[in-house]
Amino acid sequence: MLDFTFHNPTTIVFGKTAMDQIAAYSSRYGKKIVLTYGGGSIKKNGIYDKVKAQLARFEVCEFGGIAPNPRVETLRKCVELCKEFQPDLILAVGGGSTIDGSKLISAAARYDGDAWDLVINQIRIENPIPLATVLTLSATGSEMNPGAVITNWTENIKLAYLVSDCYPVFSILDPQNTFSLPQDQTAYGTVDIFSHVLEQYLNQDVHAPIQDRFAEGILLTLIENGPIALKNPNDYDARANLMWASTLALNKLIGAGVPQDWATHGIEHQLSAFYDIPHGAGLAIVTPRWMDEVYPTKLAKFVQYGQRIWGIEAAGEQCARLARQKTFDFFQSLGVRMHLKDWNIDSTHFSVMVERTAGKIGETPLNKDQILRILDACL
Amino acid sequence: MLDFTFHNPTTIVFGKTAMDQIAAYSSRYGKKIVLTYGGGSIKKNGIYDKVKAQLARFEVCEFGGIAPNPRVETLRKCVELCKEFQPDLILAVGGGSTIDGSKLISAAARYDGDAWDLVINQIRIENPIPLATVLTLSATGSEMNPGAVITNWTENIKLAYLVSDCYPVFSILDPQNTFSLPQDQTAYGTVDIFSHVLEQYLNQDVHAPIQDRFAEGILLTLIENGPIALKNPNDYDARANLMWASTLALNKLIGAGVPQDWATHGIEHQLSAFYDIPHGAGLAIVTPRWMDEVYPTKLAKFVQYGQRIWGIEAAGEQCARLARQKTFDFFQSLGVRMHLKDWNIDSTHFSVMVERTAGKIGETPLNKDQILRILDACL
Repeated sequence: MLDFTFHNPTTIVFGKTAMDQIAAYSSRYGKKIVLTYGGGSIKKNGIYDKVKAQLARFEVCEFGGIAPNPRVETLRKCVELCKEFQPDLILAVGGGSTIDGSKLISAAARYDGDAWDLVINQIRIENPIPLATVLTLSATGSEMNPGAVITNWTENIKLAYLVSDCYPVFSILDPQNTFSLPQDQTAYGTVDIFSHVLEQYLNQDVHAPIQDRFAEGILLTLIENGPIALKNPNDYDARANLMWASTLALNKLIGAGVPQDWATHGIEHQLSAFYDIPHGAGLAIVTPRWMDEVYPTKLAKFVQYGQRIWGIEAAGEQCARLARQKTFDFFQSLGVRMHLKDWNIDSTHFSVMVERTAGKIGETPLNKDQILRILDACL
Repeated sequence: MLDFTFHNPTTIVFGKTAMDQIAAYSSRYGKKIVLTYGGGSIKKNGIYDKVKAQLARFEVCEFGGIAPNPRVETLRKCVELCKEFQPDLILAVGGGSTIDGSKLISAAARYDGDAWDLVINQIRIENPIPLATVLTLSATGSEMNPGAVITNWTENIKLAYLVSDCYPVFSILDPQNTFSLPQDQTAYGTVDIFSHVLEQYLNQDVHAPIQDRFAEGILLTLIENGPIALKNPNDYDARANLMWASTLALNKLIGAGVPQDWATHGIEHQLSAFYDIPHGAGLAIVTPRWMDEVYPTKLAKFVQYGQRIWGIEAAGEQCARLARQKTFDFFQSLGVRMHLKDWNIDSTHFSVMVERTAGKIGETPLNKDQILRILDACL
């Protein structure tokens, strides 16, 4: 096992009664709240009304319209709002995009310069405005980690902002809040969680069986519960298991003490910096092609993955290749498009994408040829 | 899945370089430290010297002699010391007993009355003295939870003190610090961790597959690594996996959202309140007899346990009974004595033990007849 530090101070409030506790938890921070959300689906499915009822005794200022792949151009407006309103708490109601965007807002509101400076220079803010979340989509794990992925649409750059200590102070996880999700978002979320696990699992073996088995436990849960949630969107247990999977897949736990990869995410971030493709949709396409490229260098773990997750009896490279195909088939079975051409994405920007990532992503950093091969295979 | 809240603020510093970070982490709290430890084994194995070297620039007051099953009679002396010395941090170097005892000290030093009042009345202290730990024994999980089990030797009462917010602020986990452990302590620790998992796993099924698989991951890791550590005490990976298992088995994670039992611990606490038997030794004896008593009421999970952990192909009650026997055999294979008579314990105090626990312990509370049957079978 590798040396590590683990610390995660977020309080998770999980279950059917979680929404009733928003007021009590929020009141620990003060009376003034900036409420952030996305495109407004929460106003149709009743979540907005429930949140507002909890906030009846607070002074609330709203900021909606944080789009998927949250854009710094939008977030700057909310930073200005926070600098003026001086909230005691930012309450982000939404999925990973709203939460990620709100993390940058919470830090940038305590910074004199431009919000994008923080991202591009990875500047740490000591005292961000406390951020809490009401999760409406099981996918990114942002509800229990300090990371934010921010897009600068003007410059076609998508970057992870990891330096700030923006752990949500508390996160409200009511699986019922995901009942009304469109099918595609449920599928993309499931792929996103699956990918988060693979990034921390398909690596050199360092004799860390707990981390391996925790990772495998999440993967098996996704394979079982993703299809159930697609078939019966109101199945509480399936939604609950996907939600807890989302949180545990990226709260630093399964990655503690093991090597990590993140090349798939690195490549996908390039795709969604140039094209408006959902993050999970991009991951579904990139993952199997990344597997084709790297499995010989991580063979032991690929075989373990094939045998324990997919019940493959074959060994060695044959097992790895079958496991790759099982992964592809699983994503496809969720209804996800498996080629870039299905999203009208061609090779126009591949050379820039390769230039930006070569030597920087992967457990063993991938070179230009490797990244280009992966991208070409995604077409 | 059941509703739950999860929050665990402890920072874990894990690995071969962890000891080098004691000074840096401690300095966040101030200059004055009370250093607590047990019977003095840390002075023989070099851990004491390493800790003292890290604390060279601090004002340190020492308190040694916290015995296994820590006794309030001893702890009161350290409470007085803390009230006089007013440390910024208590640094507990040891296993669960030293850490548990130090938790009560950290709370009682901020309380005007007697330390035992806190335990008997479960009084919460808002601002305990910050407590940090250097773990030397993988067993109780106390390094990342707020619980403390305290014995009042005068009254033969052993109670868990759970109300105070005594999460260690940081815990130093260097697996090398367990290389020199006696064989029996390695074995008892492994049993203790195993039992913590079973208490949160062998229960009614509430469709919480992640919690189940995490629990199973820890059990499989113990079955694999316990014997390795006994055979090769200096095997770093085996020691590391046992240590991380210890922490994760009782940091609230695998118990979040699922029913819990704790009858085995309830009965064992009675045994070690009257007799000086190590906690893990008592658990090894009680667990299989508790299984005999309750498996029909938790059959589905017992079968899952038998099939996934022990690879048993049988189903139903036959699988449950075989799983019970596998558990017994595993504990015995670690060199643990499997009968109370091996510890010169007879039925003298059974009636008091039954009286104290009947109706209070177990997922479905056990009655007097059940508890007495379990105890009798332990003889």
